[in-house]
Amino acid sequence: MKKIKQRVLEANKRLKSEGLVISTWGNVSEYDEKTGLVAIKASGIDYDKMGIEDIVIVDLDGNIVEGNLRPSTDCATHLIIYKNFKGVKAIVHTHSMYATIWAQAGREIPIFGTTHADYFKGNIPCTRKLRKEEIEKDYEKNTGDVIVETFSNRINPLEMRAVLVNGHAPFVWGSDAHDAVTNAVVLEYVAKMAWCNMVMSSGILPQLDENMINKHYNRKYGSDAYYGQK
Amino acid sequence: MKKIKQRVLEANKRLKSEGLVISTWGNVSEYDEKTGLVAIKASGIDYDKMGIEDIVIVDLDGNIVEGNLRPSTDCATHLIIYKNFKGVKAIVHTHSMYATIWAQAGREIPIFGTTHADYFKGNIPCTRKLRKEEIEKDYEKNTGDVIVETFSNRINPLEMRAVLVNGHAPFVWGSDAHDAVTNAVVLEYVAKMAWCNMVMSSGILPQLDENMINKHYNRKYGSDAYYGQK
Amino acid sequence: MKKIKQRVLEANKRLKSEGLVISTWGNVSEYDEKTGLVAIKASGIDYDKMGIEDIVIVDLDGNIVEGNLRPSTDCATHLIIYKNFKGVKAIVHTHSMYATIWAQAGREIPIFGTTHADYFKGNIPCTRKLRKEEIEKDYEKNTGDVIVETFSNRINPLEMRAVLVNGHAPFVWGSDAHDAVTNAVVLEYVAKMAWCNMVMSSGILPQLDENMINKHYNRKYGSDAYYGQK
Amino acid sequence: MKKIKQRVLEANKRLKSEGLVISTWGNVSEYDEKTGLVAIKASGIDYDKMGIEDIVIVDLDGNIVEGNLRPSTDCATHLIIYKNFKGVKAIVHTHSMYATIWAQAGREIPIFGTTHADYFKGNIPCTRKLRKEEIEKDYEKNTGDVIVETFSNRINPLEMRAVLVNGHAPFVWGSDAHDAVTNAVVLEYVAKMAWCNMVMSSGILPQLDENMINKHYNRKYGSDAYYGQK
Repeated sequence: MKKIKQRVLEANKRLKSEGLVISTWGNVSEYDEKTGLVAIKASGIDYDKMGIEDIVIVDLDGNIVEGNLRPSTDCATHLIIYKNFKGVKAIVHTHSMYATIWAQAGREIPIFGTTHADYFKGNIPCTRKLRKEEIEKDYEKNTGDVIVETFSNRINPLEMRAVLVNGHAPFVWGSDAHDAVTNAVVLEYVAKMAWCNMVMSSGILPQLDENMINKHYNRKYGSDAYYGQK
Repeated sequence: MKKIKQRVLEANKRLKSEGLVISTWGNVSEYDEKTGLVAIKASGIDYDKMGIEDIVIVDLDGNIVEGNLRPSTDCATHLIIYKNFKGVKAIVHTHSMYATIWAQAGREIPIFGTTHADYFKGNIPCTRKLRKEEIEKDYEKNTGDVIVETFSNRINPLEMRAVLVNGHAPFVWGSDAHDAVTNAVVLEYVAKMAWCNMVMSSGILPQLDENMINKHYNRKYGSDAYYGQK
Repeated sequence: MKKIKQRVLEANKRLKSEGLVISTWGNVSEYDEKTGLVAIKASGIDYDKMGIEDIVIVDLDGNIVEGNLRPSTDCATHLIIYKNFKGVKAIVHTHSMYATIWAQAGREIPIFGTTHADYFKGNIPCTRKLRKEEIEKDYEKNTGDVIVETFSNRINPLEMRAVLVNGHAPFVWGSDAHDAVTNAVVLEYVAKMAWCNMVMSSGILPQLDENMINKHYNRKYGSDAYYGQK
Repeated sequence: MKKIKQRVLEANKRLKSEGLVISTWGNVSEYDEKTGLVAIKASGIDYDKMGIEDIVIVDLDGNIVEGNLRPSTDCATHLIIYKNFKGVKAIVHTHSMYATIWAQAGREIPIFGTTHADYFKGNIPCTRKLRKEEIEKDYEKNTGDVIVETFSNRINPLEMRAVLVNGHAPFVWGSDAHDAVTNAVVLEYVAKMAWCNMVMSSGILPQLDENMINKHYNRKYGSDAYYGQK
């Protein structure tokens, strides 16, 4: 768990150096399958001053197991995702600008090119809006539930490692804390390009062909992947 | 007052490091309730060379109490705000790009997402234009008056800590000089996203639900706030 | 002339640190009224490696008086401006992005706010296109002539220190090399905001009132100016 | 070949410092006419940790001649370009943002100004989309073939040193690895300005006159070039 805490600390700091957050917005967590515990940033901590003591350990029900600080406000959302999406090992939440703009528009991000297909196999989904009662009680847990509802029976969370929460901002995941941050960086890049394509084309654009999506996604993540040195 | 001067100096320098100003545009002041005095940047001073001697102390009528330099041209606007908005402790004026674009358009900034609701409880208001005679005489004082007129009986300045002056630029405030600068940073972030949302949607966009605005504002600033460690 | 050469060197380097140029695009010159000579950057020199030996001295007819290098390709344009606009002491040419976008659109930059009025008293003019024969022979001199033609009997070059050359990019001037660079920085800032305002409003926007233009310009440059410490 | 490897290493690192790539996206190669060999970046290598051992040497058929790592996934595309475009000495592939946006839109970049004409003699072409069978088998080689098809009998690759691959991203070339990177930097600058011009003008814009294109291209690259010190 010590290694995971260290990785979560570094990944949280990377949110700032990658330009994904300002102020104290955004948080990274990582899930340890062996112990069933989650390491997550404490709420409202400055990234520059953050130390290992600002990473809190909670169990999947949200009980604090280690640490003296309150975990991130969004902790309940993280936990719902870990409980429901098997294989997700780390989660990032940011208000990175262009991903957030799509979330504010309440629209999925269309897949316009191979840069997108290299990481995300299709349009990045956007949840429905939460209802009045879902906002007023257990808001953060309900945010997790609406993410799960968006994927159910339709999208594989291991091929689509990001979601936009309607009116709010993105949640992104990956195989460890650093991989999740990298996916959040790519999401922001792709979101900005898609915004530019929408604006340039007055809203109508042919999307990338299915064949091209499969080719690019699979040459990186498929069983016969040949990108990189592995 | 020494502490306040130091804080005002640092906050003025932060305007530059946060990317909110170029050249000598922009100024920060802080009001000391005990003495009724205001510390404010001198006019036309380079941020990089600014020292404690460039922070001037004035009373609420604009008389210089300490310092050898002329206070910021916008000083009279700051003073009107302090006199009329009880509880406002520090004021920032910048020409930060996207907030200024909304001011130039003469439009309030619509609330499109929770990032906005985390700091500002509703649309960021924009003043009416000044009349010919208000421009020609006591221009800076009249700028303050039109800000007060915009809020009167309609908006609580302690829940809406920013305003756009029509055709000009934003004024932002907070609980001390640093808090006011942070609010100015967030205003710029929110203004840029709102601009992107407007452009993407050809000007028509459903705004954030009232419930969501209250939830996000209150979990940070309400009486039962649970964001952060306090 | 040694002081002027040094200032021209520093001002050219500032083009890069201010983000106004990439590669070797852009040049600064300054005119010495006493000797009637002009110090200007040599053509195609890297800003990082530039030294005092890369600043060439020419007379107003373009004869090299000092230096072993060919002056900037745009030298002939600079000289026409010095000859025709009395009081212009320094000239900057860049391809800074947003000013160039307006030049490419062949449109003047409308005055939308006080940031613009603080430096430029009205819309930034754009020249007509050059004719085939003006392009083929003495192109750079004709570029200067079309700038002069744009201002003649209509615009005072001491109140409007910038022009867009149609399909090309801006020329900006000032009271010395540094002042001219500052004006080029402000032009770029103002050009970007005006672009955002155009895009946001589908091309139709009420411009800043005449009264407001005069107020802001005059409180900085008028005979009763009260901005700054002078 | 040692010199070329060193230059290819530096040029790959420059992709990052120039802001053309994030993560491990993008690659530079250079062709040695004497030996008929190509030096190219290995696949999936971090730019910050890249050393001379990460530059692989291949022959024009793609056989590894020197190095222990797999060459860039896009190697086959580079080789087709070297085989077909005589005089091309170095190639750069990036997903730089605005060039990629035009590729995603499947549109050539219109020539709107002299900044563009200084480097590229006309609109930057965009390939047709690849067909299903071209994607499924020998995808990277077919990407090279469709680039060659786009230029054949119509465009001179020594006057037009860039192409957009439909739905993907740009390939750019030059006289050596550094020149190719410089052209990629300019392509990105020009692509961003052209995007801004399109958006500003709702898609309709008069392009730069033929005379102006020839003038600017030729004063830099023509037989009577007079830009720079050569």
